[in-house]
Order: sequence, then structure tokens, then C-alpha cells
Amino acid sequence: MKNEMIHVGVIGLGNRGTDMIKNVVLPMPGIQVVAVCDEYEDRVKKGMEIVLESGASQPAGMKDYCELLDTPDLDAVFIFSAWESHIPAAIKAMEKGIAVVMEVGGAYSVQQCWDLVHASENNATPCMLLENCCFGRREMMVMHMVRNNILGDIVHASGGYHHDLRDEISFGRENRHYRLRNYLARNCENYPTHELGPIAKILDINRGNRMVSLTSTASSAKGLKEFIRKSPGADQSLLNREIAQGDIVTTVIKCARGETITLTLDTTLPRFYSRGFSIRGTKGMYEEATDSVFLDGVHDSMHFKWKEQWGNAEAFSKDYEHPTWKEYLSKGVQGGHDGMDWLAVSAFVRSLEKGIPMPVDVYDTAAWMCITALSEMSIQLGSTPVSIPDFTNGLWIGRTSEFS
Amino acid sequence: MKNEMIHVGVIGLGNRGTDMIKNVVLPMPGIQVVAVCDEYEDRVKKGMEIVLESGASQPAGMKDYCELLDTPDLDAVFIFSAWESHIPAAIKAMEKGIAVVMEVGGAYSVQQCWDLVHASENNATPCMLLENCCFGRREMMVMHMVRNNILGDIVHASGGYHHDLRDEISFGRENRHYRLRNYLARNCENYPTHELGPIAKILDINRGNRMVSLTSTASSAKGLKEFIRKSPGADQSLLNREIAQGDIVTTVIKCARGETITLTLDTTLPRFYSRGFSIRGTKGMYEEATDSVFLDGVHDSMHFKWKEQWGNAEAFSKDYEHPTWKEYLSKGVQGGHDGMDWLAVSAFVRSLEKGIPMPVDVYDTAAWMCITALSEMSIQLGSTPVSIPDFTNGLWIGRTSEFS
Repeated sequence: MKNEMIHVGVIGLGNRGTDMIKNVVLPMPGIQVVAVCDEYEDRVKKGMEIVLESGASQPAGMKDYCELLDTPDLDAVFIFSAWESHIPAAIKAMEKGIAVVMEVGGAYSVQQCWDLVHASENNATPCMLLENCCFGRREMMVMHMVRNNILGDIVHASGGYHHDLRDEISFGRENRHYRLRNYLARNCENYPTHELGPIAKILDINRGNRMVSLTSTASSAKGLKEFIRKSPGADQSLLNREIAQGDIVTTVIKCARGETITLTLDTTLPRFYSRGFSIRGTKGMYEEATDSVFLDGVHDSMHFKWKEQWGNAEAFSKDYEHPTWKEYLSKGVQGGHDGMDWLAVSAFVRSLEKGIPMPVDVYDTAAWMCITALSEMSIQLGSTPVSIPDFTNGLWIGRTSEFS
Repeated sequence: MKNEMIHVGVIGLGNRGTDMIKNVVLPMPGIQVVAVCDEYEDRVKKGMEIVLESGASQPAGMKDYCELLDTPDLDAVFIFSAWESHIPAAIKAMEKGIAVVMEVGGAYSVQQCWDLVHASENNATPCMLLENCCFGRREMMVMHMVRNNILGDIVHASGGYHHDLRDEISFGRENRHYRLRNYLARNCENYPTHELGPIAKILDINRGNRMVSLTSTASSAKGLKEFIRKSPGADQSLLNREIAQGDIVTTVIKCARGETITLTLDTTLPRFYSRGFSIRGTKGMYEEATDSVFLDGVHDSMHFKWKEQWGNAEAFSKDYEHPTWKEYLSKGVQGGHDGMDWLAVSAFVRSLEKGIPMPVDVYDTAAWMCITALSEMSIQLGSTPVSIPDFTNGLWIGRTSEFS
């Protein structure tokens, strides 16, 4: 640590970046925002104002993130920019010894994931993917149940990014919203980590286990056009464009220990929000759809009786609330996304202060982000199975969990 | 039709056969059971008694189904025997001009599905897979909603056979229960049709659409052994055997029109019963997990508000109950499995009487059953995508639905 307070820069001041600095980064003890940047002048100005309004000193503001990385004595950088820039910016930061905490998104190639790993290894600089859902209350409760062997051996997990984004995608002006340009150009599991992150933690991925292969299959793309057709405010010229991204992408991952993971991307059809989180073990299961826990020998397997158990997970929190959440609930939940953002950023800051490994480290970041590039490959090849690299080069066999 | 009443033979008098003749076949108007058979003497005797107890005349009884098929003037045969015998018995029956109605199960090779189709075509004899779930109340309601364009264009469907059968499998004596020997020997989507049947009907499979390819991925097999270990009554010698069948098998099917279908086999882990039926369209969705309908512009997509809608499907039955079920509910639901069995057998009998195509015909039977053989292939080949044959040889393009 170069400074008493951690000096951070912020790259990317769109909706997510603005929200995060306001509600999480600026109020977080131990850090100080010394520079902000965005490729749009108006956003830089607004970002600087937000920092000032919080009572902090005037930060530097710039359009070019390379310039931001030259800020003297910068300890860490938050990356909230468009998907395409995450890994390039992270690599440049680590080459300067600046720790990285990076908003989620998928990779565009497997190679750039290797480059990310090498940048971290070669510069002994940490990189954490800011996968807030690893810090979700239910996700952590279920992880705690698994660690305590309540659900038995885990053999399968599933999850999805079930989030109707038709509005955001089709109202986004092409140059300023990265989702639209990605949906026009690519067909893949473009956002796997909200569900995969917590599952990977539960399955000890990169710590005694690893993901070995996947297949990916995409449905046709009909949801966005139907939405645009009936939304006069949406860009009607999109109706003449080919939309590459299938409405539903199903990815099935096989792990070294034999577990399977099913991921679903589901962002362009009408539905309610869900991360479809489900964990299946030899003694029981958790299912987010009905927010319920089923334990062998405790619950009745008849469907009509099961309905009475819908929502029973809350009752399990009495015994199995994760210690982190128990403390968090008693002290008061903070920040956005049901308090997950705060816990995620806090974990990064505390790890950096103590010089201990990140709860989501560069190997996790690479392994989770590469799913996007690999799913694109598999879809292009007619759902052919593709190998998932071992970014730890064998270290996964002996590594133990930093997050349990 | 050779007789005024349809003369039927019954092959297979295990649990399912016994239950079906007692509750559905014998009480069904228009048919008469003239012969029963099973490879076990005790079952034949019991089957004959059940027929007599119903007030019908004494049927013939025999151990060999080939002998049963020689019964004079037999119009149709019900096949309730072990999985392995379904298609061979069906082919032998059709070669004698005897119509076939066959309990569900998967195929062991793609070739035997072709043989089944050829037997039906060459002998102009119908073959119906008794997929009772095509006649499920919710499945038919959702099909009715789809036909009325309430859910928009359908782009994805999913379903599963989520049924904890650990008891039945591991307590089954190896020679008398077909499931156990199959679980010891094979790793595949061994029971796809309960979910695939209704989905195939909704997606117009073999009638304007067809399934073109699939991938299948199996988890490790841990559920049965954990169950046997803690069940003193179960055959403990199974702990020394290798169990081939993975606990969870995920199969992803791609259709000619671009829809995807996800199937899950899930029979050896603790859980509640479900067919995991879900249909996703550009205007809305149905999801069995929460028995709910989501309509674009009607329901709120926020997750916490969505919980208030759990179970709302019943309210939709007022407007969208399938006409068949509307009538059925008013007259009184009969037979097992929530009344589905009765509707399925009744559809077979009425189609035979009228000489019209079966609602589930030989092309459907072949296409649905071949998924088992193809999933076994895909798993053996490391989840490689495999082609699904077109058993109609191009007729699917022009065929229209017999079941809507």
C-alpha cells in the first residue's frame, strides 16, 4: 500500500459506475477516489461533481483511462466501463502495479483471459471480478449449508441471468450502450457470472475442482424485434437489422469432479427477474424459483404437498444464515442490489489492506469470463463441446478455498 | 374394426399394467380385454382375476406376448411391459395388423425407431405412445394459450422428469424391475417423454417443425449409493456395483424453426416431484415451478413483486382452460395420474373407432423415443451434438396438427 487510505481511480461513469461511486465507493471506509474517467465529457463532469458532493476532495477527471492510470500513487482502479474495455484496462492497470476490481461481463477470446492472468502473475498485482452475486444473501446461506454438509455431495447446479433487458438494449443508442452493439454482433452466453460465480464458489472451482468442458445452444432471436415493433420510442431502424444474439442460450458445463452446471442467458423475453439459482445434492436441494429448501427425510416429495413449502428458505436462515450476513444484517445492510455491492467492494478493500488473496481472484475471473468466448465458439460450431482452459496450470489441485 | 367392441390384449402386468387395466382400460367404454400376458405366472393369474372382478368375461392368459398376439380377432394391444420390450412387441403386433398403444420409455437405438415407423407404414396400422402428460391439465391449458397467441412466438421450452425414484430403483429386484438394470448399464436421458411430449405438441414437432440435433451431458452418479447406504432394506450388494446412470442428465435440443428445448432427467436425488414444464414466448411465459403465467405489459418483472403471482395459473384457467378439460372437469375426472391416463387411453380408443390419425402417432413416438438413444450417444462422445432423424422423411413440412 502506497497510501494510508487506498487511493482509487474509477474508469467508466455510465449508469453502473455512477451508481457504484455514489452508493458504495465513496461511502466505503478506507478508500479515497482520486481520479475518474469516461470517454464522454459530460459523464466525467458529473462524476467529479458526485465525488465533490460527497465531501471528498476534488478528483482528477479525464477521458482516457491510460491517463488515469498515470495518476501518481494510485493503489487500485475500479472498472465500470463497457464490456469490451474491461480486460484491456485491467491488464494496463496491473502492468503499472495497480490493483484491479472489475465489474462483470464476459470475455471476447480465451487468449485475453490468459493475458489477464499473466498480467496479474507477472506484476504480482491482484485482480478481482466484482461478482456481487457471490455475496448474495441466499447464495451465501446455501454455500454455508453446503460447507456444513446439509445438502450432501453436490452433483449439479443451475442458474441463469433471467433479466428482461429489452428496454435497456433497444432504447440504448448504439454508440453509448455496449449491450446493443454486442447483441447485434454476437451470439453467446454473454453474461454468465451472476449465476456462475456463486456456483463456482460452492463447487470449489479452482480450489480442488475445475470446469473442464461446455456445450452452448442458442434459440432464435425474436424477443427484441417483437418488443421494438410495439414500442414507438425504440429505434425502429433496428427492425431492418439482423440481431445475432439468441433469446435463450443454454450452456452445460462439466466439472473435473463430475458435477454439471447449467447456465441460461435469458434477457430478451418478457419475464420476472431471477438468477434461477439451484443446488442439488445427495441429501437435499435449494431452488430459487420457489425460494425453498428440500431435505431428504424431512420434506414430502409429493408435488401438491410441496407447494406448502414454497418460500421456506427464510425459515432456514435461522440456522444457516452465513456468518457474514448475520453480522451484516445486525449492523445494517448498505448500498445497492440488496446489499451485495457493498459486501463485494468491502471484500476487495479489506483483502487489499491486509495483502491477502482476493475472494474472487484472477484465476476465477479468467475461468468465469472465458465461458462467454467459449460459448460463442460452441454455438458457432453447432453446439460442439469445447474445452475450458485451466488458468491455474495445475494449481487448482492443491489450492484451498479463500471464501467459505 | 373387426369387432363391435374393440378387442384388446394387455402385455405387461407389473404395477403400471395392473393399475391401468383396473382404473382405465376395464372401465373405458367401447373396449373389451380378451387376453392378458406377463412373463411372470403370478402376474398373469392376478391380471385375469382383475378382469373377471370387473364383471367382464374370462380373458385368455399367457406368458408369451407372441402367443397373445395370435389371439383371434384382436384389434389392439396395450404394452405396459419392461422398457426393452416395448418396440419389439409393438412391431410384432403391427405386423399382424394389431393397433398399438404403448406405455412410455426410451429407445435403445435409432434403428429400432425406424423399424417401428416402417412396421406402422407397411402394415397401415396405428401406433400411439401413451404419453399421458400430453393430456395434463396445465400442459393442455398452456397449449391452448399458445394456439391463441397469448404467449407470442414460442422460442424456448424446458421440462424435466424430476421424480425421486431411488426407492423404486434400489429396492427393485434386478430381474423384475427394468429400471435397476437400466441404471446399472446405461447413462442417458432414459425417460424424456413426460416433458418432451407436451412440448413437442406445442412446438408443432412433425407438423411444420422438427427436432434437428441435441447435446446431452450427465453428472456423476452419487444419489443412489448414498440412498442405499442409509437404507438397510435396500440391496447392499449394489454398493459394490458401478452405477452407470448419472444423477442429472441435461439435454438441449435444437428445432428446425429455431426453438430450443432443455430436458432434465432427475430421478436419483432427493426432491419433490415436478415435470419442470416451462414455455417461453415473445409475449409471455408459463412456469410450472411456481405454477404461474407471466404476460408482457400485465405483470411486474420485479422479483419481489413476482412472488405475489406464484400460483396465479389457476386464475388463467377461467379464460384458457382447454376445451377438452373444461368438458372433462364438468363430467368428472377419472382414472389415475390426475385424470391424464383416462384422457390418453380415451383418445386412442376414439381415434381407432373413427379410423382417424392418433393424437400421438408413430412419427411422434419414434421422434420422442429416439432422444434416449441419441442422448446415450452424445454422452458417450463427450456431449458431442448428434442429429435427430426425420422419421417422416419430409412429410413434417406439410403435415398439420391433429392435436390442438
